[in-house]
Amino acid sequence: MPRRRDGSGYHATGKIRSSGPAEASRRGAIAYLCRSLATDNHRLPHTGQTDYRDATRIPAAALSVPDALLLERLAAEGAPVRIKLVLTPHDLGPVTSQNVTAEFKGRERPEEIVVLGAHLDSWDLGTGALDDGVGVAIVMAAAKLVRELPHPPRRTIRVVLFGAEEPGLLGGAAYAQAHHSELSHYVLVAEPDEGQGPVYRLRTGVANTNEPSLKAIVAALAPLGISLGDNHALGDSDVRYLARGGVPTVALDLDGTDYFDFHHTADDTLDKISPERIGQTTAAYAVLAYLAAELGGDYRAP
Amino acid sequence: MPRRRDGSGYHATGKIRSSGPAEASRRGAIAYLCRSLATDNHRLPHTGQTDYRDATRIPAAALSVPDALLLERLAAEGAPVRIKLVLTPHDLGPVTSQNVTAEFKGRERPEEIVVLGAHLDSWDLGTGALDDGVGVAIVMAAAKLVRELPHPPRRTIRVVLFGAEEPGLLGGAAYAQAHHSELSHYVLVAEPDEGQGPVYRLRTGVANTNEPSLKAIVAALAPLGISLGDNHALGDSDVRYLARGGVPTVALDLDGTDYFDFHHTADDTLDKISPERIGQTTAAYAVLAYLAAELGGDYRAP
Repeated sequence: MPRRRDGSGYHATGKIRSSGPAEASRRGAIAYLCRSLATDNHRLPHTGQTDYRDATRIPAAALSVPDALLLERLAAEGAPVRIKLVLTPHDLGPVTSQNVTAEFKGRERPEEIVVLGAHLDSWDLGTGALDDGVGVAIVMAAAKLVRELPHPPRRTIRVVLFGAEEPGLLGGAAYAQAHHSELSHYVLVAEPDEGQGPVYRLRTGVANTNEPSLKAIVAALAPLGISLGDNHALGDSDVRYLARGGVPTVALDLDGTDYFDFHHTADDTLDKISPERIGQTTAAYAVLAYLAAELGGDYRAP
Repeated sequence: MPRRRDGSGYHATGKIRSSGPAEASRRGAIAYLCRSLATDNHRLPHTGQTDYRDATRIPAAALSVPDALLLERLAAEGAPVRIKLVLTPHDLGPVTSQNVTAEFKGRERPEEIVVLGAHLDSWDLGTGALDDGVGVAIVMAAAKLVRELPHPPRRTIRVVLFGAEEPGLLGGAAYAQAHHSELSHYVLVAEPDEGQGPVYRLRTGVANTNEPSLKAIVAALAPLGISLGDNHALGDSDVRYLARGGVPTVALDLDGTDYFDFHHTADDTLDKISPERIGQTTAAYAVLAYLAAELGGDYRAP
C-alpha cells in the first residue's frame, strides 16, 4: 500500500478487507485471505472491520506483507499451496458501549457549542495508542489549555469521547440521534482520528467560507505550518453524523505518512507517540477550539 | 539498543540474553525476562541462544521493546505487576547437522585454498533470509562469478556452508577439527554473517600486512566504497576456529545499521533483501576471492 501523507492509500484499498470476504463468499469461496493493508514490511498483520451484509460468513483473515509475499512466490512457482487456517476470533454478541462527554460553559452564549470528538475504543491487536488514544489525549489537552486561560471563551466547548467507533461509528450515530434537537446550536465540530499529527492542513465543510472567524483561525494556524485546503470536509470518523445533520465541520488533517505502519496492528502502542508531534496537534486543536468558541461565527449562512 | 553501523550495540549487550538467565538463576530467580536486544520498536521480540552452563535452568524469554516499556511504566507507577508466562520451546536433544562444501580447483596450485564461509541454519522465528540465507547467497554468487571467468584462478576456491552455527558455532568447530591437517595450505578465509551489506570496510587478521596481493585487494575494493580498517579481525562467526588455527582471515564488514531491526525476529524474511545491497556485497566477495586465489600471497610471514 502506498505511503501517503493524506492516508489515501488506505482509503482506496480499505474495501479489500471490509467487503472482500462477502464478495468472495458470494462467489463460492470457502475462506478469504487478504494481504495486509499496511505500509510497513513487518510480520504483524493489519486487520479491521469486515462487513458480510447478507453474504454467508466465511473465515477471513489478513496476512502480514512478508507472509503474503511468500504465498505469492510459492503460487508463482506453480507449487501446490495448502493453507491451514486456525482463526480464534468469535462474535460475543452486542454489549453496551458508552459515549463520555465533558464541557465547560461559555461565559456569554453557553448554548452555542464547539464540539471536539475522539473515540475511546480501539481495534484489538494493539493497545490503541494511535487509534485513538492519542486523539482522546489531544482533545482533552486542547480543552484543558483553553479552560486554563484567564477568561473562558464566550461559547461552550464540549469534548465528546465516543464509544464503539470501530464496529462502525455506532457511538457517533447514537450521539447525533440523542442530541438531534441541539445540533442547530453547534458552532463547529472537529475530531482527530488519524494518528498523532502534526496537522498540515485545515479543510472545511461549511456553507459560509467567508466567515471572518474562520479567517482568524486560518491565520492563527499558519505559523504552525498549517495550510488551507478545500471545503469538502465531511466530518472525520465519529462526527460524520453531526456533519450530515448540518453541523459545520473543520478537518485538521493529520500527517498520516507512517500511520498505517501501526494502525490496527499489534504495533499500535504508546512508544510510537512523539511528544513533539502531539504538541503541535494539540496546539492546533486548542487554537481552533478557542477561536471558534470566542469568536463564534455564522458558518451556516450561504 | 543503539543503532550502529558496526553492530557494536548488539555485541555489547548480547550477554544480557545469553548469560542473564544463568546469572538470575544463581541468584534465586524463578524466571527471566529481558528487553529485546533489538534496534526497532516493533512488537516482535528478538531472541537467541541462552547458555545456562552449570546453573539450574529457569524459564527465560525476551519481551519486544514496546512490551518491555509497558512493563517498565507499570513498575514505575508502583502497580503490582504479575506476569503469567506460557513458553512453548522445548529441547529436542542432539541431532546430526551437516556442513556442505563446494570448490573448484585452482589451475596451478590446487592445494592452496581460499575459503568463503556462510551458515545454513537460522534462528527459528523468521526464515533466516538475513541470518544467514543472504550470506549463503553472497558466497555462492561470488564463487559462481569467479568460476565463470575465462580462466579459473591459480588457487582453489572453496565455499563452506556450515551447519549448526546458531547453537554455538558447532559446524565451524567440527570443520576446523576435521580439516586440521590442511589448514596450513589455506590462503585466506572470510565469511559474511551480519546481513546483506553493503561492505564498508576491510579488516585483516594476518601476520603480514605488507603482502602485495593484500594491497591489490584493498585497491580493487576502494571503488566499491570500502576502506581499510585494522588488523584485529578474528574470523567472523563459523570461521573463528579456522582463524584460531592460524588461517589468515579477512573481514569484509557489513553495514549493520538496520540488521538488528530484523535479526533473530519473526521479521527476518526475504522481502528485507535489497538486490542493490547484496550486489555490492557479492562484488566485494568476488573481488576478494578472485584476487586471493589468483595472486596468493604469504599472509602468514611476520
